[in-house]
Amino acid sequence: MKKFDINEDPHRRYNPLINEWVLVSPHRSKRPWQGQNETITSDTLPEYDPTCYLCPGNVRANGMVNPDYESSFVFENDFAALKQEEIAFEENKNETFFKAKPERGISRVVCFSPKHNLTLPEMSADAIENIIHTWQKEYTNLGNVDYINHVQIFENKGSVMGCSNPHPHGQIWAQSSLPTEVEKTQSNLKAYFDKHNKTLLEDYVKEELKLGERIVIENDYFVALVPFWAIWPYETMIVSKRNVSKITDFTETEVTDFAIILKQLTTKYDNLFETSFPYSSGIHQSPTDGKLHPEWHFHMHFYPPLLRSATVKKFMVGYEMMGESQRDITPEKSAEILRELSITHYKSKS
Amino acid sequence: MKKFDINEDPHRRYNPLINEWVLVSPHRSKRPWQGQNETITSDTLPEYDPTCYLCPGNVRANGMVNPDYESSFVFENDFAALKQEEIAFEENKNETFFKAKPERGISRVVCFSPKHNLTLPEMSADAIENIIHTWQKEYTNLGNVDYINHVQIFENKGSVMGCSNPHPHGQIWAQSSLPTEVEKTQSNLKAYFDKHNKTLLEDYVKEELKLGERIVIENDYFVALVPFWAIWPYETMIVSKRNVSKITDFTETEVTDFAIILKQLTTKYDNLFETSFPYSSGIHQSPTDGKLHPEWHFHMHFYPPLLRSATVKKFMVGYEMMGESQRDITPEKSAEILRELSITHYKSKS
Ligand SMILES: O=P(O)(O)O[C@H]1O[C@H](CO)[C@@H](O)[C@H](O)[C@H]1O
Ligand SMILES: O=P(O)(O)O[C@H]1O[C@H](CO)[C@@H](O)[C@H](O)[C@H]1O
Repeated sequence: MKKFDINEDPHRRYNPLINEWVLVSPHRSKRPWQGQNETITSDTLPEYDPTCYLCPGNVRANGMVNPDYESSFVFENDFAALKQEEIAFEENKNETFFKAKPERGISRVVCFSPKHNLTLPEMSADAIENIIHTWQKEYTNLGNVDYINHVQIFENKGSVMGCSNPHPHGQIWAQSSLPTEVEKTQSNLKAYFDKHNKTLLEDYVKEELKLGERIVIENDYFVALVPFWAIWPYETMIVSKRNVSKITDFTETEVTDFAIILKQLTTKYDNLFETSFPYSSGIHQSPTDGKLHPEWHFHMHFYPPLLRSATVKKFMVGYEMMGESQRDITPEKSAEILRELSITHYKSKS
Repeated sequence: MKKFDINEDPHRRYNPLINEWVLVSPHRSKRPWQGQNETITSDTLPEYDPTCYLCPGNVRANGMVNPDYESSFVFENDFAALKQEEIAFEENKNETFFKAKPERGISRVVCFSPKHNLTLPEMSADAIENIIHTWQKEYTNLGNVDYINHVQIFENKGSVMGCSNPHPHGQIWAQSSLPTEVEKTQSNLKAYFDKHNKTLLEDYVKEELKLGERIVIENDYFVALVPFWAIWPYETMIVSKRNVSKITDFTETEVTDFAIILKQLTTKYDNLFETSFPYSSGIHQSPTDGKLHPEWHFHMHFYPPLLRSATVKKFMVGYEMMGESQRDITPEKSAEILRELSITHYKSKS
């Protein structure tokens, strides 16, 4: 009988962060593609767009005027999915099928730069440090609101990821409950911490650094790697080497190192298909429920959809929705490709 | 303090099938859209396409020639994500971070019709009965293979759902393990059954039929409804009224009623935006592991991405990937819209 070869044979891998599996089909990378091609958005955006509701000095949907901001700029989302209002509600504990609870929250937009056409990889490391400081401030301020127990910082980049405006920006949705994915992660992190008195990611990163094969970049305080259990073709995770549970625990050196690794990783992404690389990214860290959370270990997920070119993405559809996530290229191969890409942006080379 | 109004206030709803929550933001339906528009594929496909690898008589990628089939036609996927080969493997039970296991399986393509341009809603109920019989046969034959414990029947319809060929077809991925989503569902169904000695969906459907507000269509043996916990804007589920755990338990009258409800539901979908409505659908039913599964209750999920028109879809991205699924329009509103749509296909009206 043929012996198992993880680089060739169909197999499942286990994700200990959320207790779920992914189906890996390495032999399938050669599949031809006759399906949908994504449109590439033009690379020649102006530095200022008079019709953009995020550019400095412009008017937003609700009539407010953006200030002439010079670095980052934060405002309440004009079409927020959450509202701050307190709602009276009596819970029916016996309800099985029609369980619903009002949810309070605050949703903000974070403009990364006044320049309409500048994305993370093209910003200076200093400008990125400024964004990190903004995230720290927001995490603190939102986390201090009495009913806010979780602050989700994220970015949707590219129209293929549902982003409706190319002006560089992310969002923050802060709310009273722990969202489903965070709750799952927390329960697995906690079980590990209770057993080993160390964080799951501290031990995982140590192992990965020893093996090396899934590392994309590292510096003194951070590692960017393709997780062993990654589902998206070029999914990565930035993890702090030191066991910090939240962004506000960073030292200033860590802020600098985090800015550098963010710039380098997103530059490699752009270089992969010589395009402004779409992704959703988001930070997972300690809830703000006022309790100590030694089990949490700061990490940032990058979920990019592209598979083989700037226009062909991976579809997580039928089997993936009914069954489980499936990937073709192995995480090791993706890491190798990303590792070998330059950290100089392709546009700055000419 | 304002009293909770489920039709207006942001809230979370609980999905008892998979033990996860969804964030509902009813007030947000008015959000303007400046983002990506999907391309609509031309409605004027030929009945036979000489370049289509699914049309009768044509040659496939591996050189095989399709027979001149007259109803449905099943073949092994030429680029299967799973392989049948048995792989030797020694499990390391102590592994935490690098858990992987070879996975055996069989992956098939089911052509629904020899006609290149015919989709489910435009087929006769008889032709759909024929597809159901094919699914029954495949479920039995694949389920009888000694190492196959789960048979996933599904369809990706439309290029926006990753479908690379408009020729009407679905797929079946049969494998040795229970996929993640099925495993989750099974554990919740089982807990309910052990407690109540009835299936969760039997009780749920009874409650929904009493309330009526989320029902889209029903006939003697089946109900199509928008689940209370639906995440996609027009997500639905077809559930058998009788407690049957798998498709092979259907009586012939049930096959007929299932065909009719499939035709009517997909017709309503097409009528919604007067377009060939994209979705991923899939059947959840008893595993084929040789054990009795009284907890399973036959149901079929429909996950359609469109939100407001034939070109604007809902993106499950940043917050949804990091946090939890989010929807704007309420399930009750969606059900009302679908319920009121005609069961005569818009194309046959002219
Ligand atoms: O098998 P197909 O139709 O070529 O491919 C499609 O369905 C598969 C199963 O849901 C997915 O893994 C692919 O990403 C999708 O493009
Ligand atoms: O808030 P935006 O950028 O308008 O909208 C985008 O991000 C949100 C949060 O991930 C999603 O709910 C929307 O589907 C997506 O289009």
